[in-house]
Amino acid sequence: MKNGRNSPTCQRRIAVEECFAARMDSVHRSFIREILKVTADPSIISFAGGLPNPEMFPVQAMSEAASRILGGSTGAASLQYSTTEGDPVLRRFIADRYAKRGVEVDPDDIVITTGSQQCLDMAGKVFLDKGDTVVIERPGYLGAIQSFSVYEPNFVTVALQDDGPDLEELERAFAAGAKMFYAVPNFQNPSGVSYSAEKRAAVAELLDRYGVVFVEDDPYGELRFMGEHLPPVYSFRKKPGLLNGSFSKIAAPGFRLGWVVAPGVVRDKLVVAKQATDLHTSTLAQSIMRAYLEENDIDDHVETIRETYGRHREVMVEKIREYFPAQVRCTEPEGGMFLWATLPEGCSSMELFDSAIRRKVAFVPGAPFYADGGGDNTLRLNFSNADPERIGEGIARLGESIREFLD
Amino acid sequence: MKNGRNSPTCQRRIAVEECFAARMDSVHRSFIREILKVTADPSIISFAGGLPNPEMFPVQAMSEAASRILGGSTGAASLQYSTTEGDPVLRRFIADRYAKRGVEVDPDDIVITTGSQQCLDMAGKVFLDKGDTVVIERPGYLGAIQSFSVYEPNFVTVALQDDGPDLEELERAFAAGAKMFYAVPNFQNPSGVSYSAEKRAAVAELLDRYGVVFVEDDPYGELRFMGEHLPPVYSFRKKPGLLNGSFSKIAAPGFRLGWVVAPGVVRDKLVVAKQATDLHTSTLAQSIMRAYLEENDIDDHVETIRETYGRHREVMVEKIREYFPAQVRCTEPEGGMFLWATLPEGCSSMELFDSAIRRKVAFVPGAPFYADGGGDNTLRLNFSNADPERIGEGIARLGESIREFLD
Repeated sequence: MKNGRNSPTCQRRIAVEECFAARMDSVHRSFIREILKVTADPSIISFAGGLPNPEMFPVQAMSEAASRILGGSTGAASLQYSTTEGDPVLRRFIADRYAKRGVEVDPDDIVITTGSQQCLDMAGKVFLDKGDTVVIERPGYLGAIQSFSVYEPNFVTVALQDDGPDLEELERAFAAGAKMFYAVPNFQNPSGVSYSAEKRAAVAELLDRYGVVFVEDDPYGELRFMGEHLPPVYSFRKKPGLLNGSFSKIAAPGFRLGWVVAPGVVRDKLVVAKQATDLHTSTLAQSIMRAYLEENDIDDHVETIRETYGRHREVMVEKIREYFPAQVRCTEPEGGMFLWATLPEGCSSMELFDSAIRRKVAFVPGAPFYADGGGDNTLRLNFSNADPERIGEGIARLGESIREFLD
Repeated sequence: MKNGRNSPTCQRRIAVEECFAARMDSVHRSFIREILKVTADPSIISFAGGLPNPEMFPVQAMSEAASRILGGSTGAASLQYSTTEGDPVLRRFIADRYAKRGVEVDPDDIVITTGSQQCLDMAGKVFLDKGDTVVIERPGYLGAIQSFSVYEPNFVTVALQDDGPDLEELERAFAAGAKMFYAVPNFQNPSGVSYSAEKRAAVAELLDRYGVVFVEDDPYGELRFMGEHLPPVYSFRKKPGLLNGSFSKIAAPGFRLGWVVAPGVVRDKLVVAKQATDLHTSTLAQSIMRAYLEENDIDDHVETIRETYGRHREVMVEKIREYFPAQVRCTEPEGGMFLWATLPEGCSSMELFDSAIRRKVAFVPGAPFYADGGGDNTLRLNFSNADPERIGEGIARLGESIREFLD
């Protein structure tokens, strides 16, 4: 029994870093989180983050909700283990809100998650075998790329146009045997693009026809400043997909409360995956959120967020028109938290970043949002988390940096 | 492009349940959670659950902590996104508590997790390639089997003796090339067994020698009623392993707050895995726990839990001696929440379960805790979550069921 020390198996495993699973080779630390370290200096005007504005958090109402829950007869129950599916009252509340917007959802088909990021991990666990093809928008949400990478899929990207994905590219990817399509049809992170009604219908038809698993991520759908609310792709379909939602942008992200809507057979698998991952989402966080929703009008609250972010967006778009050279193209999103800028071909936003930092203004270079390369001349600007005055000043500085850079 | 509909690829994927990843075939819904549905009837005295006693939750102190956090200047920050590693003050607090018990831990090597169940998922993600061997105790913790199963390892079990694992079996498993050993050395769930100091040292030596990744799970270590506190296997080692902890049993599980201690290179990988899984653990839950710890003496609180559970355990052991037939062997744990009974060879605790339910008493049959089969004649009894009178009555009923069953 003592020969293990010298066996090749044993030698190979003497250092713990040699024991890492192969899957982790393709999962990288979030690039954005690294950038945020550079931009922590308060003298820098940062459009790099993706944070909701903390002034929009209903702190006082949450404090009262916590008192009701922990001070009342529900105190001990809110600190105990609870079901993997999540609080039934909270799930019914979510279903009722969908119903108000004309989306029919059975509360039993909702699973409460530890933030909507967990929906992605659960979807990856439940659906992705190594080498399966995941179709993702180009540019696409970085957190999803990171989350799915754990399950070692093959990513295929589809160009995002002004009104949604390029349908020919999408069909080509589906026809080639894609298993999953992941998309953010409302005010996408990073681009701010939303799908038109026509594209929603067309995407739904393609999904139904090819039997592709659809993971529809909708954290920003309620933050519309202009134009008309459009139903999710989910509503256009004959076969239900997965629809992810979140309290992070309509209430506060610190709860880590999201949800996934999925048809029965998928919901059951997701519940098993979640049980294996964290047993259930914080009972306390769920209870406080439920108490908040019972005593407050969240629609009123969302309206306030909309007005505030809408004003920020307006200032940013105006100042961009004033300060950016005409060769820079920018999206003018109808909602959400982000705006996307494209520099002339051949310009590197990564190089621009360095000179922008010298002028004390920051953004996120776009390349990491391209799962299969490209996008070197793009960048993301966040407008939710800065006051209008700082936005004006920051865009002016960035405009100077770009002009200098282009010369 | 329209040929997709009739291609074999597409046909195969038309139904969503045919798209599930292979890994999910081996992950099952928690057997215990299914049993708990049967035992929800309040007329049943249930020893089946694994719940801490809600009377032990510091509800009032947590309510005050929540008020301080949400009512004070920290309100908005407690509702915002935060770092993946977790609250630095909370991490320092955890390191200081280890130091008090003579265990040296760098706060930088601690990652706050969404319950200690998440430590298992993270360890699986980071270390387990398909087919890797995970060594686990026989019987072993069900949640770990479920969690690791997602990563498709090969389980090898090692018999748990009164003072820890069978060392010969353990070395044989290590020598055969095991990658990971998972164990609960203090008051194990389900058996109540604790490792002796000698076995801790011997296990540490084997781990170091064979370079096996050790995941040491310690949710119950502080709940010792008698005997002397022993340092974790972690302290006996030359190379550090992973040491998991939890606030669930010393404060309350509804927070979903746990932690993992791991050396730098492993910690970095765990952070990436956690980022991909849920970005970070609830800021609100972490902030309330921190505020609780700052204003209360948790050691005092743990002492109260110890006294209460110790009394429950005493009643259960006494009543077992009084009511169980002598052929039934039971552990007499020095701490924790569980006691383990072994019926005579050939008796099925699953069959006993049905007749016990008719007498309105419940337990968990032991077979599911055996990752590779066996244990049909064993069962788990929980003593934390019932008052002493109900424990006496329940053990009397169970004794009758067993006698009837053995006849």
